Amino acid sequence: MSNKEIIESLIKQQGELVRKLKSAKESKDKIDDEVAKLLELKAQLSCENGEIQKFTLKTAKGTRDFSPQQMAIRENVFTKIIGVFKRHGAETIDTPIFELKEVLTGKYGEDSKLIYDLKDQGGEILSLRYDLTVPFARYLAMNKITNIKRYHIAKVYRRDNPSITRGRYREFYQCDFDIAGAYDPMIPDAECVRVVQEILESLDIGPFLIKLNHRLLLDGMFAACGVPQDKFRSICSAVDKLDKSPWDEVRKEMVSEKHLAEDVADKIGQYVQMNGKLELVEKLLSDTNLTKIPAAVEGLEAMKLLLDYCDLYGVKDKVIFDLSLARGLDYYTGVIYEAVLLGDTKIEDPANSVGSIAGGGRYDNLVGMFDAKHKQVPCVGVSIGIERIFAVIEAKLLSGPDKVRTTEIEVYVASAQKNLINERMKICKELWDEGIKAEQSYKKNPKLLAQLQHCEEYGIPLAIVLGESEIQKGIVKLRNVLTRNEVEVPRTKLVDEIRKHLKTSHTNGSS
Amino acid sequence: MSNKEIIESLIKQQGELVRKLKSAKESKDKIDDEVAKLLELKAQLSCENGEIQKFTLKTAKGTRDFSPQQMAIRENVFTKIIGVFKRHGAETIDTPIFELKEVLTGKYGEDSKLIYDLKDQGGEILSLRYDLTVPFARYLAMNKITNIKRYHIAKVYRRDNPSITRGRYREFYQCDFDIAGAYDPMIPDAECVRVVQEILESLDIGPFLIKLNHRLLLDGMFAACGVPQDKFRSICSAVDKLDKSPWDEVRKEMVSEKHLAEDVADKIGQYVQMNGKLELVEKLLSDTNLTKIPAAVEGLEAMKLLLDYCDLYGVKDKVIFDLSLARGLDYYTGVIYEAVLLGDTKIEDPANSVGSIAGGGRYDNLVGMFDAKHKQVPCVGVSIGIERIFAVIEAKLLSGPDKVRTTEIEVYVASAQKNLINERMKICKELWDEGIKAEQSYKKNPKLLAQLQHCEEYGIPLAIVLGESEIQKGIVKLRNVLTRNEVEVPRTKLVDEIRKHLKTSHTNGSS
Repeated sequence: MSNKEIIESLIKQQGELVRKLKSAKESKDKIDDEVAKLLELKAQLSCENGEIQKFTLKTAKGTRDFSPQQMAIRENVFTKIIGVFKRHGAETIDTPIFELKEVLTGKYGEDSKLIYDLKDQGGEILSLRYDLTVPFARYLAMNKITNIKRYHIAKVYRRDNPSITRGRYREFYQCDFDIAGAYDPMIPDAECVRVVQEILESLDIGPFLIKLNHRLLLDGMFAACGVPQDKFRSICSAVDKLDKSPWDEVRKEMVSEKHLAEDVADKIGQYVQMNGKLELVEKLLSDTNLTKIPAAVEGLEAMKLLLDYCDLYGVKDKVIFDLSLARGLDYYTGVIYEAVLLGDTKIEDPANSVGSIAGGGRYDNLVGMFDAKHKQVPCVGVSIGIERIFAVIEAKLLSGPDKVRTTEIEVYVASAQKNLINERMKICKELWDEGIKAEQSYKKNPKLLAQLQHCEEYGIPLAIVLGESEIQKGIVKLRNVLTRNEVEVPRTKLVDEIRKHLKTSHTNGSS
Repeated sequence: MSNKEIIESLIKQQGELVRKLKSAKESKDKIDDEVAKLLELKAQLSCENGEIQKFTLKTAKGTRDFSPQQMAIRENVFTKIIGVFKRHGAETIDTPIFELKEVLTGKYGEDSKLIYDLKDQGGEILSLRYDLTVPFARYLAMNKITNIKRYHIAKVYRRDNPSITRGRYREFYQCDFDIAGAYDPMIPDAECVRVVQEILESLDIGPFLIKLNHRLLLDGMFAACGVPQDKFRSICSAVDKLDKSPWDEVRKEMVSEKHLAEDVADKIGQYVQMNGKLELVEKLLSDTNLTKIPAAVEGLEAMKLLLDYCDLYGVKDKVIFDLSLARGLDYYTGVIYEAVLLGDTKIEDPANSVGSIAGGGRYDNLVGMFDAKHKQVPCVGVSIGIERIFAVIEAKLLSGPDKVRTTEIEVYVASAQKNLINERMKICKELWDEGIKAEQSYKKNPKLLAQLQHCEEYGIPLAIVLGESEIQKGIVKLRNVLTRNEVEVPRTKLVDEIRKHLKTSHTNGSS
């Protein structure tokens, strides 16, 4: 009886069972279960009949697999970033990939339409997380946590129309560092800047700048220019486009689409073209149009303190106070950040930005949205634009001369003759027992050339080459794959000798 | 104008816009977008009105958050497991959390009803992955990869009715190691056993056994007992229940539910109570009922070879050939594994199992299901039952005397007097610049006691205690948090001194 015939007979049995259950008016659940089994069997039969591949073999739109090479690059980047987070004493948490839909509702403004919903299969209505910040706020409120410094690196989901070439996907990693707690002004805020600076320095992806601004100052500036309060948000989101569009276009949006008076737009235009350091804060503090608005003064004083602290933290050269920085999200309440790469030019002017690579800010009211008594937990944080960083580093590495190693194997156990599989296995066992990273061919009698090629392909530094005569003499040949030098080593001293060789090759930087 | 008033006015504007679009018979997409914005605004208004928390603040059913403490334990376990995978030269890949629904169809038998589907929001029909094996097979077929040794640690999703007490969830980690490629018999298969053994040893979670069996032998044994071929699968899944149910119950299922003749069931009963080592293989090879079935002989010869290789790999004591091992999944075609913890008893008898902790087997036909020409890529692999392992280790650690550290901070920068925030910041900067893991209070003038308590709570080994007089003398006090010893150190030698102290405390094992 062939597989196909077995399945056909099972389908017949299952079909009868379903009919019996239906005619006995059994519970819907029970019938559904048996129908599901029936459909599965039919699907299996299609496979047996060769009716597979009716669908294109692909990953879902906007998502991708990661190859071992890409994973090796990611792991390296994550290790560096996590190293910085740990240097600053951050703990890590994890939350489920989906949340009750209500948790996400009312948090993302018009971007809510990009949220992935799960199918209603009975039970709770769920959505995939859109970012890590809202689940973090939910976690704090739910567990009544008032103080934490945490990082979270995980995937988030957005039903965006992804432009793959610009490195945007529907499934992508976020990499967040946040400090929650009621503390003194700008102390945690300044550490976030320092963390971004350490991360971008450690990744060595070229010159960058960290732009700083303050939501209170933006609001104060809008008020000073005469923007009606109910237009603050929409004008703020117009200003946010300045990193991609020239002022003329943004002005047009303000005037034509958002019905702002032309003279008001022009006043805004003067402010948003300003950027600088402490001297700009001083200049604006003497601008009486601004200083009559309390929020503006409060924002400027905060910026002054932040810039002082940035100086103490040694990041003065990397920050710039930039009045055009607005950030899209509604929930920011204080300082806002955005780090930009400057491309090949070394001139540290925000105008040379080739793209945002980190962003964040203070959000003091988000946690309270989850608390029955509106108890607030002030938060400030940054999100590292890890996908963009991967893209930059991947492009650099793959175009460079060095191969990216995808394994860490130190010794390959090869044989020069047939019928040595047992001997190879014994040696592998010895090496693994000693914690040495070792592998061998899965073929019983592999060709020596194929084995040595594998070593070169995978960048394995050492190979043991076994032969009958050496085994009889109680020795093995240890080969340096790069130089092709071979030395004879007594079996009993093999592990020591390997350790010695690995140490030398590590210090030579050849691994 | 209050926030509430702003939102109300925005709702009014947005409502008008939607009415306008509708009366102009604009495209459904455009109207939907604007309706989404309107709903968002209304949700925001509910929040402003304090109408939050109508839903219970919780994670989705069967899912959970992980606290910093749990994450520290997980990280430690993952590091050990990944260490073993890397010692064996495995590469890692990643795949998206969801797949086209068709990729999963026809792979899981009756468990298909546990698959989470995404809502049809236009576009492709998607499902959350149910395991890592099917996406792996899809990845191999899609990229035409014929050889790879890979590990993958990631979350999978099952709409099971979770029994949280038994450590089962709807979102949980899987931790898979697989070797794909056409190789010689049992060489990769034996390495999987060795990998499981190394992992379970390294985690130090008590005595365990790795049960081995072979699907061909099972089929041959069924045939020898007189099971009709179309009942092989259902009888196999009955045998699979032997780890939870006694033989009497399984026999009853075979006879009453699956209509197997009583004498056939009794013959099976004699076989499935056998377990042993090489001598059992020999015994069965002289069982003429079995040896007349070619599949049985093939399975027994394979077991013999596997046990020989296990001996060479030094895992002889940990494996047992167990005829009751069946494994639930349909797709296995050769060797099958299951590792069980033996509980407190040290008696290495499968009857003392307190639960399965790893499992796997050979599946040579799965990749071919994705290939248009049915091109097969033989695979063998194991999946480590990581959630169960976490549960065991977490219980052990949390009941033990030692605290689990959730950060790696080496030095806390404290001040004994007011107004030293700038000085603290400068020292933090110096330490971070040197790669030392350091933190300080986010308060401007924290109490010394509170700072030292923080150090004890987080297990931070060293504290710098700043005071005016020391600053003037160019020195700082370095405090050993555990012993409360303090030494005075010149500022210029601070970093060296810290490194020296950390080295000592590391070698003392106190960190």
